[in-house]
Amino acid sequence: MPRKPRKVHRPDEDELAFRRALGQRIRDLRTPKFSQDEFADEIDVFRSHMSTIERGKTDLKLSTARRIAKALGMELDELLKLEK
Amino acid sequence: MPRKPRKVHRPDEDELAFRRALGQRIRDLRTPKFSQDEFADEIDVFRSHMSTIERGKTDLKLSTARRIAKALGMELDELLKLEK
Repeated sequence: MPRKPRKVHRPDEDELAFRRALGQRIRDLRTPKFSQDEFADEIDVFRSHMSTIERGKTDLKLSTARRIAKALGMELDELLKLEK
Repeated sequence: MPRKPRKVHRPDEDELAFRRALGQRIRDLRTPKFSQDEFADEIDVFRSHMSTIERGKTDLKLSTARRIAKALGMELDELLKLEK
């Protein structure tokens, strides 16, 4: 049986705002410790993807978010605790 | 310029354990309120995908994790706060 494609969800404004806020938070936490390229290498993503993440233009996978939190020396839930 | 494919990461044991723990946590939180099918409809994923999520066999996107947390009436960081 062919794998059913996952349902595609168009991100609503709340989701887009979340991605921007998370991207900014990652950038703020990353900047004192790494350049963007160093951080991309550290979490093993393409440098272009790192920029996309920090501009809040992507729907991160949990495994990537976990590697980001680990590289920043924090727990995943701490990274994802965004101010309202 | 063609979009470079994202780097593919083989999940290590720690990542696999995280997915199983999160799947179990979602199931435990979901069970008193919804059947698995009702919950799949609530968060708008295919029912087969819901089962995959609860068995810890998938790398969730943050947007899906957010919809799960919302449907369970909790914050994303609360959902992702797993016991060590």
